[in-house]
Amino acid sequence: MSIQPVLIDGEWITSTASKAFQAVNPATREPLADEYPVSDWDEVERAIHAADAAFRATRGWPGERFAKFLERFADNIESRAEALVVAANLETALPASPRLGDVELPRTTNQLRQAAAAARDGSWSNPTIDTNTNIRSMFGPIGPVAVFGPNNFPFAFNSVAGGDFAAAVAAGNPVIAKGHSSHPQTTRLLAEAAHEAAKETEMPSGFVQLIYRTNHEDGEKLVSHPLMAATGYTGARGAGLVLKQAADRAGKPIYLELSSINPVFYLEGALTERLEALADEFSGSCLMGTGQFCTNPGLVVVPAGDKADEFVAAVTSRFGAAAVGTMLGEGVQKDFEKGITILKNAGAEILTGGEAGGGNGFSCANTLLCTTGQKFLEAPETFQTEAFGNSSLIVIAEDIAQMVAIADQLEGNLTGCIYSDTNGGDDDAYDAVAPALRRKVGRLLNDKMPTGVAVSAAMNHGGPYPATGHAGFTAVGIPASISRFAMLECYDNIRPHRLPDALKDENPGETWRLVDGAWSQGDV
Amino acid sequence: MSIQPVLIDGEWITSTASKAFQAVNPATREPLADEYPVSDWDEVERAIHAADAAFRATRGWPGERFAKFLERFADNIESRAEALVVAANLETALPASPRLGDVELPRTTNQLRQAAAAARDGSWSNPTIDTNTNIRSMFGPIGPVAVFGPNNFPFAFNSVAGGDFAAAVAAGNPVIAKGHSSHPQTTRLLAEAAHEAAKETEMPSGFVQLIYRTNHEDGEKLVSHPLMAATGYTGARGAGLVLKQAADRAGKPIYLELSSINPVFYLEGALTERLEALADEFSGSCLMGTGQFCTNPGLVVVPAGDKADEFVAAVTSRFGAAAVGTMLGEGVQKDFEKGITILKNAGAEILTGGEAGGGNGFSCANTLLCTTGQKFLEAPETFQTEAFGNSSLIVIAEDIAQMVAIADQLEGNLTGCIYSDTNGGDDDAYDAVAPALRRKVGRLLNDKMPTGVAVSAAMNHGGPYPATGHAGFTAVGIPASISRFAMLECYDNIRPHRLPDALKDENPGETWRLVDGAWSQGDV
Repeated sequence: MSIQPVLIDGEWITSTASKAFQAVNPATREPLADEYPVSDWDEVERAIHAADAAFRATRGWPGERFAKFLERFADNIESRAEALVVAANLETALPASPRLGDVELPRTTNQLRQAAAAARDGSWSNPTIDTNTNIRSMFGPIGPVAVFGPNNFPFAFNSVAGGDFAAAVAAGNPVIAKGHSSHPQTTRLLAEAAHEAAKETEMPSGFVQLIYRTNHEDGEKLVSHPLMAATGYTGARGAGLVLKQAADRAGKPIYLELSSINPVFYLEGALTERLEALADEFSGSCLMGTGQFCTNPGLVVVPAGDKADEFVAAVTSRFGAAAVGTMLGEGVQKDFEKGITILKNAGAEILTGGEAGGGNGFSCANTLLCTTGQKFLEAPETFQTEAFGNSSLIVIAEDIAQMVAIADQLEGNLTGCIYSDTNGGDDDAYDAVAPALRRKVGRLLNDKMPTGVAVSAAMNHGGPYPATGHAGFTAVGIPASISRFAMLECYDNIRPHRLPDALKDENPGETWRLVDGAWSQGDV
Repeated sequence: MSIQPVLIDGEWITSTASKAFQAVNPATREPLADEYPVSDWDEVERAIHAADAAFRATRGWPGERFAKFLERFADNIESRAEALVVAANLETALPASPRLGDVELPRTTNQLRQAAAAARDGSWSNPTIDTNTNIRSMFGPIGPVAVFGPNNFPFAFNSVAGGDFAAAVAAGNPVIAKGHSSHPQTTRLLAEAAHEAAKETEMPSGFVQLIYRTNHEDGEKLVSHPLMAATGYTGARGAGLVLKQAADRAGKPIYLELSSINPVFYLEGALTERLEALADEFSGSCLMGTGQFCTNPGLVVVPAGDKADEFVAAVTSRFGAAAVGTMLGEGVQKDFEKGITILKNAGAEILTGGEAGGGNGFSCANTLLCTTGQKFLEAPETFQTEAFGNSSLIVIAEDIAQMVAIADQLEGNLTGCIYSDTNGGDDDAYDAVAPALRRKVGRLLNDKMPTGVAVSAAMNHGGPYPATGHAGFTAVGIPASISRFAMLECYDNIRPHRLPDALKDENPGETWRLVDGAWSQGDV
């Protein structure tokens, strides 16, 4: 079995790697056939220089060029959909249908097409014109971007096809994709589709490149290299923080999505009003995809009382009765077990589950834990340990004041939910909890689970550290996610014919521009 | 002489500091009378807790409240203008008129009033509404902000009155100002004006606070404290990078303006066409304010030839003939001398100046250095050493290709200028140099010196690292500078009456909002 090639400077080439790895089928725990290289630094550096050359070639191109590439890429993914779903299912054990084929793949192509539309339209670049001073500015591409994808969305967050990739390209940047080691075949197939699209739309050779793995040190060198401009990373907190430190030191922006336990606060009236429905909704949301979502509700806070006890019992029985899913890999299972052990050692009671196994391959029982508000407040950091997977921790708070105190102790999270009754009886409690929670989360929800992350212009898939590296940016949602991979470019007294089209007096299309304080699609 | 009080939690209180310092009059080199405290950590921590309490109190307030404070503050500055100008002149040796009284002070109140208008209007917060999914988002205040001001703009970049202060407050954040040690009395007078305004407009007690100095370790603790949300810093690169590392490790955004040599490229035709005028403009711009501007043109690149020689001679004679200004302090003079020595040791030839003295108090001769493009390219980092003050380095490039190579070797800068002739003869050279320079600077100029920084919505006073910490943000210009001190807040399925006013169906005023992809000032 030969080692799969890497995509460097427009060619699938034999890697110079001296090491290789195989992915594992999580449902069988058996290694999959193909071997993939662990690229050495020379190979990574070749990719960096090719990306820099690509950036020099594409700088100043109209958004139309990037749009065409993104759209062709989406088409190519659709024409390979069957093979992609088979590969991703083998490598992740996520269901081929509906999850991979009917939800995630269409989401991925939809994202690419939305990014294409944004690249073509140009409004994302926020063209700003001050006719009084003749100063004009807009966001422009920042340069070569490294994208590190996570394990849990083999298509929609894939390093070579997901949201970060689409955003970086829409802004006009070449991408060096670093695939996740758990699904290299899926990544290879996506990169083939991207590579074909790049050739078909005449992108320069280093515009889309793929390596599968490097050692940690080379990863740090990649994100801090003088020719690299920025990085997008979605994954585990530990590895992310190592990259963050390297990028920070070099003054390179890095956008990280690291971890989140997505607290859910149920207020008394909501439990009284619709307990069974809430238990159904919560259990379904928490166990869906074996709980392996960034926005999985991993912490629940309820006010003590009969209704809380009933809710806990209702969720416990549903967790016990639900089928146990397969986890994405051995590492996920081990980290999950570690997390549960930490919570248990801190004093959380296991209501159901807690043990390994119960499903095909890598798996752990659906696990529900419980503790009191007082105990949580004695060790808030420990009780916020993420056990990524099919588990959640319920905290029984003494009263509303304690719910607020718990919210005050939360780390940054992607999301926070508050459920209240429909007749206003919980409004005082809501007004106490919401401001504290608002400060800690990127997306605040009412009466809705956080697991769905719509690709909407108003979405924020981000939040305060350590959920992400910067609370001002979102990883999902177009056009907002694009501006992460851009620099602010000001043109002061530049002669009219030298201005980028979007800043000329005549609007090149229907681009929204801020002209003398008013948004307009017209000419100056 | 008793030690001046600090402003903590709404009171001017006696500092618990065990150390104190005095400012020095740069024109006489004599210490000024007042003593100012070096706050200890307990005092800093008291300020942090008061700022946190202030943030809890003001969170959710309408922009109108912050606008009123900012406007009253601007009024109070104007009513104290005379005392402020006297103090700033004593502490900085910058001319009372026109610089301090007629330019910088009006600029400062203008910035505060522009920030007030932005706070009232709310458009800066980018309200985004997706009616299809009922997801809505906007920028909201991020929390307590620390502002570290520089030495060179005692009003307009002052920690308690300048651009960062105005932007942080406009977003709704309390500020802990850390004054610059070179102008504590100016800072005290500004803080008094701010404090009065805060009382008059009923801001909470910890909304505006002032400390004058801390030790380095406490500065690091301040910017990384869990209750602090973000930092704005303008100043020297070394101290800034120490704060950056502390803030980065804690996952706290820090916006830094660190250093910039602001390269200027003169193309052949421009020199042929208007050499004397260019030499006048350049010399005036470079020596104005004793060259102590962030955007001072410290590096000049000209194509070799008779015209270059003439230009060098013309600038040399102007530098030699111009009056020598006073520097802001002893540290500035010493750093300047160090910088010149580094450039000299690297092989730069001193055309004029180079020695200390020549003006009142702290001063160095107007200094012009020269080197060749080849030498520059052999040690590009060294030749980009900033000698902050009245100096510049001229690089004689062999040809256009070498000018491009020099641009490619530039670090990130705030600005970059290209001068070309008016009849198009330089256009090919421009097209070669401009893309390389564009990538390295926040603001690109044509035929204009970079020293003026208009407070315009289209301004970018920012640029790639190490000019600043993040090339996506600007420190000057409203509304763009405000978003640095904000977090993205998404509201998903939130009941209508709980939404912030700016996200309700009915537009609360004339706020620009992005509704279903179109900007509008109307209702949904």
